[in-house]
Amino acid sequence: MKVDAERLWARVEELGAIGATADGGVSRIGYSAEETAAMERVGRWMTSAGLGVHYDPAGNLIGRRAGQRRKTIVLGSHLDTVPNGGRFDGALGVLAALEAVETLLEAGTSHEHSIEIIAFRDEEGACFGRGLVGSRLASGTFNLAAWSDARSIDGRTIRHVLAAAGLDLERAVSEAPREPSSLAAYLELHIEQGEVLESGGKRLGVVSGIVGITRYQVRFMGRADHAGATPMNLRRDALLCAAGFVQLVGAQARAAGRGLVATVGRLLVDPNIANVIPGRVVASFEVRALESEQIKSVVEAVIVATEELGRKHDIEVVFERTVQTAPLLTTPHVIHALESACTALEVPFQVMPSGGGHDAMLMGTIAPFGMLFVPSRRGISHAPDEYTAPDDCALGAQVLLDTLILLDKGSS
Amino acid sequence: MKVDAERLWARVEELGAIGATADGGVSRIGYSAEETAAMERVGRWMTSAGLGVHYDPAGNLIGRRAGQRRKTIVLGSHLDTVPNGGRFDGALGVLAALEAVETLLEAGTSHEHSIEIIAFRDEEGACFGRGLVGSRLASGTFNLAAWSDARSIDGRTIRHVLAAAGLDLERAVSEAPREPSSLAAYLELHIEQGEVLESGGKRLGVVSGIVGITRYQVRFMGRADHAGATPMNLRRDALLCAAGFVQLVGAQARAAGRGLVATVGRLLVDPNIANVIPGRVVASFEVRALESEQIKSVVEAVIVATEELGRKHDIEVVFERTVQTAPLLTTPHVIHALESACTALEVPFQVMPSGGGHDAMLMGTIAPFGMLFVPSRRGISHAPDEYTAPDDCALGAQVLLDTLILLDKGSS
Repeated sequence: MKVDAERLWARVEELGAIGATADGGVSRIGYSAEETAAMERVGRWMTSAGLGVHYDPAGNLIGRRAGQRRKTIVLGSHLDTVPNGGRFDGALGVLAALEAVETLLEAGTSHEHSIEIIAFRDEEGACFGRGLVGSRLASGTFNLAAWSDARSIDGRTIRHVLAAAGLDLERAVSEAPREPSSLAAYLELHIEQGEVLESGGKRLGVVSGIVGITRYQVRFMGRADHAGATPMNLRRDALLCAAGFVQLVGAQARAAGRGLVATVGRLLVDPNIANVIPGRVVASFEVRALESEQIKSVVEAVIVATEELGRKHDIEVVFERTVQTAPLLTTPHVIHALESACTALEVPFQVMPSGGGHDAMLMGTIAPFGMLFVPSRRGISHAPDEYTAPDDCALGAQVLLDTLILLDKGSS
Repeated sequence: MKVDAERLWARVEELGAIGATADGGVSRIGYSAEETAAMERVGRWMTSAGLGVHYDPAGNLIGRRAGQRRKTIVLGSHLDTVPNGGRFDGALGVLAALEAVETLLEAGTSHEHSIEIIAFRDEEGACFGRGLVGSRLASGTFNLAAWSDARSIDGRTIRHVLAAAGLDLERAVSEAPREPSSLAAYLELHIEQGEVLESGGKRLGVVSGIVGITRYQVRFMGRADHAGATPMNLRRDALLCAAGFVQLVGAQARAAGRGLVATVGRLLVDPNIANVIPGRVVASFEVRALESEQIKSVVEAVIVATEELGRKHDIEVVFERTVQTAPLLTTPHVIHALESACTALEVPFQVMPSGGGHDAMLMGTIAPFGMLFVPSRRGISHAPDEYTAPDDCALGAQVLLDTLILLDKGSS
């Protein structure tokens, strides 16, 4: 049973026209008219594929075909994008799922579990500055209190944004959550957004887990002095100390190995003038890995060594934690099904962590889950030149289909 | 012959009221009404001290008392400030000069040279983003072509700004320059703007020269990738490379010794987001020292080592020179006169470079010159809490007077 590579690619292109930008990108912000239009288009394709289509109280689009067993296998991703993003991040996951299920149904193959495709709302967070809205609601992990101060880019609360889309926030919170015992598995295909596959010559990635993220804001407080009148030995240069910290972060991450990454992505200097010694620096510091203990150990090593640097440079250093999410390992039997499908097709694949969050991160808290990565050309995502080759799209959909069949025959 | 410490301090306070800001600072931008008001106040004090007062074609205030010899000894500084600056930077040099000359004249002491006090216009450059306007014009080093694109904070050319102050730019350029052979010496008292004196327990600084400044803009070009999806070994992190450069600059400056300082004061990261690997960094890099060869050697060492770092991190590094001024050593016989005056008063002093530019840097190109530093509390300048103690102000004025007498009796 082979997926239709041309149909899939034609849909990637047709969907990419909804919210298309002048420079070849796509803007479909969560809960915008463009996201809704994309859902309606996909909904029509679901219907013609033979699925029953409805929206859940969160506004997530669901295409469903009932099976004999009580549990449902869900395939999902999202249709929203960042502003001027690409055609593949999210959309390919939904379209590949549709291609897999449509191929299955066209062949008249029976399936034991019910099968659903879900297109989640507002994964990217471009509306509220925090995302995964649809999958938070569907997984019952949406925290109403934590979102009370959230405002959209045009200043509206989430209650108003949902109301404008014909949705009721309270109803979404109480009725959108899926019953964990009703779910057999959650599967998501997504673009890699890195270049591990491309640089390693692999066609697909089987995700071993979604990394935990710990993030700090780090402040370095020295003294802004005249760069000409202050000898080297009288300086309290916050940037000189922060530079040592940046190098420590890189060195500790490399030493840690096992896929851990650590990044200083943001750094602001004050007063930031060529002839004034930097008095203050504020930097971000984040560590991602699949093991909480490993994250903790790198964070502690960086803090201890940076405080030591601070004493040496006479700089006050303050670490303030701003984010902490736990790693979430994918489910062994789902990993195994994905690997078996790849092996049967003789596809070179790699088991690898997902360094970013996805809807799977939330659905994985209530169901066995797995993820499949397809290559991103040059690792580019969230940009107009995000690209996955048609062959890779089709291969991903094929593995998704074969995995779905394996899981359907499984015991759960 | 002793200066009047109370009169000097009263004038510091009275002058500080012109352009006073709400938080205790002073705003007297060059060529503003506040600078003009300060000049008029000082002009009245000059007149009552027995000096003939006039403005040169650049708008510089000059108080003059003729002597028997052909040459003139000039004491000068400026009355303008940065926005919300302090009461001492510039103003103290003019008032200490006035106190020295007024004391000399009150005592009825004869002097052989003509004596002038000059308050130069717009030293700080707060109007045009580049300063030393009055002393550039008076020293004949004003480059009309280089200033053709200069615009004031409200968008006017220097021609318009001078015209609004009743001045003609062409006339200022052709007639303000002093004839070098008419000048016996230029002396300037200034606040240190650092804390070398305070930290070393010294009361005064005799300036050995004004440092040369070489400044570069340095660009680091890597690649902005997803901080979660890009393993450490696939990164081209521009900030990690720039951090190594910042540390190199500090290490090379410390190793160089002999008063050399090097600073990375400005650093901008792009895109500067916590979860994106920095793709580009732009940084400033400046070196200051009294010896051109020493500056050159540190600059070269930093460039070579940074390019090596760039190759290691796969980052393209580009150094572009933006500023290069030559060091200017003060004149030995003027240094000697300042030292003799300090020694006679048993004042603990230190011979030290001036790390910043001053009007003396321009006047020193056409006349023998020297500078005297008084301490800045905690090294603070260009801020409301800039402060020099009344005793230090008076001691500076006394040494200025005694040096003036020594120079007047000298042969030149």
